[in-house]
Amino acid sequence: MQALRKVAAGPGGLAVHQCEPRTPDDDEIMLKVQCAGVCGTDMQIYHGYGAFAQRVKLPTTLGHEMCGTVVQVGKNVKHIAEGALVSLESHIPCWHCRACRTGRSHVCPNTRYPGIDIDGTFAEYVTVPAAIAWVNPAGTDPAMAALLEPLGIAVHAALEGSGVSGQTVVVNGCGPIGLMNVAVARYFGAHRVIAVDPNPLRRAIAEQMGADMVIDPLAHTPNDVVRKVTAGEGADVVFEYTGNPQGALNCFSMVGALGDVRWCATPGSPMEFDFGMWRKGRPTIYNIHGRRLWTTWEAAAPLVYGNKIDLAPIVSHRIPLEEGVRAFELIVAGKAIKPLIMCALS
Amino acid sequence: MQALRKVAAGPGGLAVHQCEPRTPDDDEIMLKVQCAGVCGTDMQIYHGYGAFAQRVKLPTTLGHEMCGTVVQVGKNVKHIAEGALVSLESHIPCWHCRACRTGRSHVCPNTRYPGIDIDGTFAEYVTVPAAIAWVNPAGTDPAMAALLEPLGIAVHAALEGSGVSGQTVVVNGCGPIGLMNVAVARYFGAHRVIAVDPNPLRRAIAEQMGADMVIDPLAHTPNDVVRKVTAGEGADVVFEYTGNPQGALNCFSMVGALGDVRWCATPGSPMEFDFGMWRKGRPTIYNIHGRRLWTTWEAAAPLVYGNKIDLAPIVSHRIPLEEGVRAFELIVAGKAIKPLIMCALS
Amino acid sequence: MQALRKVAAGPGGLAVHQCEPRTPDDDEIMLKVQCAGVCGTDMQIYHGYGAFAQRVKLPTTLGHEMCGTVVQVGKNVKHIAEGALVSLESHIPCWHCRACRTGRSHVCPNTRYPGIDIDGTFAEYVTVPAAIAWVNPAGTDPAMAALLEPLGIAVHAALEGSGVSGQTVVVNGCGPIGLMNVAVARYFGAHRVIAVDPNPLRRAIAEQMGADMVIDPLAHTPNDVVRKVTAGEGADVVFEYTGNPQGALNCFSMVGALGDVRWCATPGSPMEFDFGMWRKGRPTIYNIHGRRLWTTWEAAAPLVYGNKIDLAPIVSHRIPLEEGVRAFELIVAGKAIKPLIMCALS
Amino acid sequence: MQALRKVAAGPGGLAVHQCEPRTPDDDEIMLKVQCAGVCGTDMQIYHGYGAFAQRVKLPTTLGHEMCGTVVQVGKNVKHIAEGALVSLESHIPCWHCRACRTGRSHVCPNTRYPGIDIDGTFAEYVTVPAAIAWVNPAGTDPAMAALLEPLGIAVHAALEGSGVSGQTVVVNGCGPIGLMNVAVARYFGAHRVIAVDPNPLRRAIAEQMGADMVIDPLAHTPNDVVRKVTAGEGADVVFEYTGNPQGALNCFSMVGALGDVRWCATPGSPMEFDFGMWRKGRPTIYNIHGRRLWTTWEAAAPLVYGNKIDLAPIVSHRIPLEEGVRAFELIVAGKAIKPLIMCALS
Repeated sequence: MQALRKVAAGPGGLAVHQCEPRTPDDDEIMLKVQCAGVCGTDMQIYHGYGAFAQRVKLPTTLGHEMCGTVVQVGKNVKHIAEGALVSLESHIPCWHCRACRTGRSHVCPNTRYPGIDIDGTFAEYVTVPAAIAWVNPAGTDPAMAALLEPLGIAVHAALEGSGVSGQTVVVNGCGPIGLMNVAVARYFGAHRVIAVDPNPLRRAIAEQMGADMVIDPLAHTPNDVVRKVTAGEGADVVFEYTGNPQGALNCFSMVGALGDVRWCATPGSPMEFDFGMWRKGRPTIYNIHGRRLWTTWEAAAPLVYGNKIDLAPIVSHRIPLEEGVRAFELIVAGKAIKPLIMCALS
Repeated sequence: MQALRKVAAGPGGLAVHQCEPRTPDDDEIMLKVQCAGVCGTDMQIYHGYGAFAQRVKLPTTLGHEMCGTVVQVGKNVKHIAEGALVSLESHIPCWHCRACRTGRSHVCPNTRYPGIDIDGTFAEYVTVPAAIAWVNPAGTDPAMAALLEPLGIAVHAALEGSGVSGQTVVVNGCGPIGLMNVAVARYFGAHRVIAVDPNPLRRAIAEQMGADMVIDPLAHTPNDVVRKVTAGEGADVVFEYTGNPQGALNCFSMVGALGDVRWCATPGSPMEFDFGMWRKGRPTIYNIHGRRLWTTWEAAAPLVYGNKIDLAPIVSHRIPLEEGVRAFELIVAGKAIKPLIMCALS
Repeated sequence: MQALRKVAAGPGGLAVHQCEPRTPDDDEIMLKVQCAGVCGTDMQIYHGYGAFAQRVKLPTTLGHEMCGTVVQVGKNVKHIAEGALVSLESHIPCWHCRACRTGRSHVCPNTRYPGIDIDGTFAEYVTVPAAIAWVNPAGTDPAMAALLEPLGIAVHAALEGSGVSGQTVVVNGCGPIGLMNVAVARYFGAHRVIAVDPNPLRRAIAEQMGADMVIDPLAHTPNDVVRKVTAGEGADVVFEYTGNPQGALNCFSMVGALGDVRWCATPGSPMEFDFGMWRKGRPTIYNIHGRRLWTTWEAAAPLVYGNKIDLAPIVSHRIPLEEGVRAFELIVAGKAIKPLIMCALS
Repeated sequence: MQALRKVAAGPGGLAVHQCEPRTPDDDEIMLKVQCAGVCGTDMQIYHGYGAFAQRVKLPTTLGHEMCGTVVQVGKNVKHIAEGALVSLESHIPCWHCRACRTGRSHVCPNTRYPGIDIDGTFAEYVTVPAAIAWVNPAGTDPAMAALLEPLGIAVHAALEGSGVSGQTVVVNGCGPIGLMNVAVARYFGAHRVIAVDPNPLRRAIAEQMGADMVIDPLAHTPNDVVRKVTAGEGADVVFEYTGNPQGALNCFSMVGALGDVRWCATPGSPMEFDFGMWRKGRPTIYNIHGRRLWTTWEAAAPLVYGNKIDLAPIVSHRIPLEEGVRAFELIVAGKAIKPLIMCALS
């Protein structure tokens, strides 16, 4: 089969190679991949920086967001049948550590990932533990099903703490998950959804996704705008998706008294920080990571099945597997929001 | 001025009489009433049954839901100005008991009410403590502002526990507040909103308010329908608004494993109950009463100001103050949802 | 081996018979039982009433509370070794339903139990799924380890909602788990622990377990006493363990404004109930069932390992397996709190 | 009367001067002060650094922790009588902002303080709004009553989030409030209480207050010790009381997966911080400030009244008002934990 693989260390080093699908063991399933999204972690491995880039062995097929069809099941697999249309939870928890045993497997310290620790989803076929499969109803649009994994982060964040219903919400950073978070916050009845991003394309899509107001942080100080529309109170909830130092700082200035910050991205290197700053509003800070298994999926999937939110504007490109490297290049060029790699060759 | 008053004990005994507005004391305000809704408590006093009917002294002007304009303020009142367009919290807490001192004044055991303990809002003018006034932005539709008090119960219920976002919700009983709850659950992003009521008019309005499905409990067993659409799981949240024995029982059958029941109405007399029944799904039961001060109002008011939910279908009649008794008669006849008494005589 | 089994339907029908231990399948373990407690569910089967008595097939070895040593492990069992000293979670969840998949396997509708659906722990050996084993540190007192399962219910209840720290707590009913709850509430820093039971022996043990005050409900109206010591406020938390109609009603009278009731037992048959009664204090009601896997065990086990609470007064009798029927008779006679059946024959 | 006042800007500038007690206005009370504790905020004003030092006008009597007897009440004060033994909440909220109106007056942005904005408690008499008075039972030890205000911070922190019952807890920094937190965590049934402080006197008192283990961060890396005793899991809860950069960083290393950090002190100036560090354990971070009115007091006061925790070891010195400057000097010299200034001259 064809697979888009990291074949050389350092920046770049991606290529579409021929390799064999792996036969599922007793607890695994093999999927014929329909499409698979490119995510920030894939980009880090592409660029060759960060912990995951160090961890990946060469060659490894990248990719962990996907939708596909079950073509083979291991002998212990009783709850998933051949032909099922499946999305993947990208975390493979160990199921035996304290986190896993107490309902927090999304932060299992032993988590493994397709596309990092085992071959991933940018391929015609992928083989994974059945325990990470989420079965979609027949007829679900595969492109939308492939987005359930990143959507889950936004839904996880939106349901944490006091939720978003009736509250003034800032989505700080409008990458794909930030944009999904705009739609989710709108659907879950936030009072106001304010989106912040310097990129005009992303701000335009944020408005499509339901933002009541967008802020260009290069043109305005986000906190000034937020304080103005909230009569000085600040936001009830700030979602951090910028992952850059100034963006991270902005979260703490925008959040109001006893509000909360949901931390979904983080600056990649140390920075100067005044802890006194986060004492001003006394916010609670939630560290959001992955998706609660399977509570988050239960809440997220129906948003897509019922077309309650429309994720189509987020899918900026559909690129055939054999040209998959181009998806990475488009992101680097700032031209793509979420490219999908189309793996099912006709 | 004219006022609609309870002037004789027992059933009926309402009349529009002339009386004097009361001069506000230092901590009070006097309001020119624009309109005022008729509520279940008013009905109980009209019928002469229940604890409140015993408690009301004769004569007393009825009514506690309202919108009006401040025409006079006591000398200690510094945060509300003449001319302000005000809605009323109907609870007058004592502010000094343990409940009040710990942020739970909505369940103050010493609560007093306009329309019961002091003259109420079915009059040209009403005088109340400034502490129960909620100031609306100029230009707010008085009819909608008068509905903020009952709307607050629905919002309080919808935000309790795990909220409603992403969940399957049943609104059991579609009186005015049940109908508002349908709209609120829809706006706050419930996965499904299922409304139950035997009255076809109310079911029709429930659909207008955003119910995904309505059930006539005389034609179908609500639990059978709910289990069918939820693959046997039952509802995540059931809001109880019927206040009748069978309706109350239905709540416990419809709610799924570890779901919750939000108890907003209660049968008026003892009934047979099998506690084993509520053990089936192990639901948590929240007793919803009034509005959290002022957290609930902060969440509820913007729903109206921004036209995020449309309460117009709930206002079934607008009746001049001098004909106010007719509003009660329409409710008795089952012909009214929420009649507003128009108190501002032109 | 010897095993205490239900061999005849209806009341009684228990006998110690010879039978073969069952060979563990791939995911199971076989335990040599050291001791096993008699619980209310065992009593129901003994008496032949209730749903579990109907469900049990004849003959079945009873018992589900226990401590024992692993003597054999199935080939898929990798996290438990021969020789481990194990307590058992008594619920065998299906792991595949919605409840199980969303971290709520303690309310799995497909739960199976040793001593009901498969042979139980009143035997020299028992074979169970490895997934319900909790491994104790070597050297743990087996009698105390056998109590972890019922203790878990008390800990689950004590940690639910607002916990107990700093609050006035009533434990209504002092059977074995009620008594454990007294100790747990005391250890978790309740402000006051008030225990209610008509049995003087149980009240005496409640005081040993740390109750600040005990009430005999036959001599005093519990609510009168509770209101007196709380300046009329009522209790913050009431734990219901009586399972009888008057006891159940008492919960709702004793609980104060916005307090909560943790429902751990339930009357066996329908009764007259005035829902208006539970509206007085507006309590939240939590239905407590089993133990959260494994969160509750994580909190409960250290209480025993570190001797933070002393459960010894609850173990009223230690009875050799061959005389096990006597344990049931002692409970019927009201002479036992928690008898342990000693299964390891020397 | 005599009063210990800030009379000159910059470092030092304290003196005991004669001045007149202020007559209470309608909503105020005048108290004869019995004793008053010296707190970190007083120290900042003494040293002349920080925002509060800028804010204080000269001369101002310092002090906000205290216990005293009511000697005069304003005409609107109806719930507090002359002779009452009172402790003070040190925050004077505005009661009208959004925070105050929604049950969060402890973070009111308009808060004023005795000892900063009005004359404080290091004097024979102090006059304050009746609304910040907490009435103690007659017979309460005034020294213990004066500690209720700082104790409240520890209780607030201990009850936030998941509380402490059954959890492994680190108290990072053992100043007076950290030491109180040790006692509170012990009383509320933490599984383990680990205290960290470089000062051997403070570590010794931490053990007296109930710490199971103390760590000298100059001799050991706190995280190494914490990971060792928790089998690598880290702490469930870390309370930050050091307020210094390395201490602040230690919090994020010591906290385990999905644990939480309760932030009660904060470094005084910007520092280098790697946000990636706090992503490791994904902790929730609660910003603890002041005391929830009056929920925290309701939980804290009985700990003292019932001698459930013994705060005596924290009172290191009792110093007559006329020698009050010495209390500040003892703290600077590192010789005092919490000195009380005895204001009632015999």
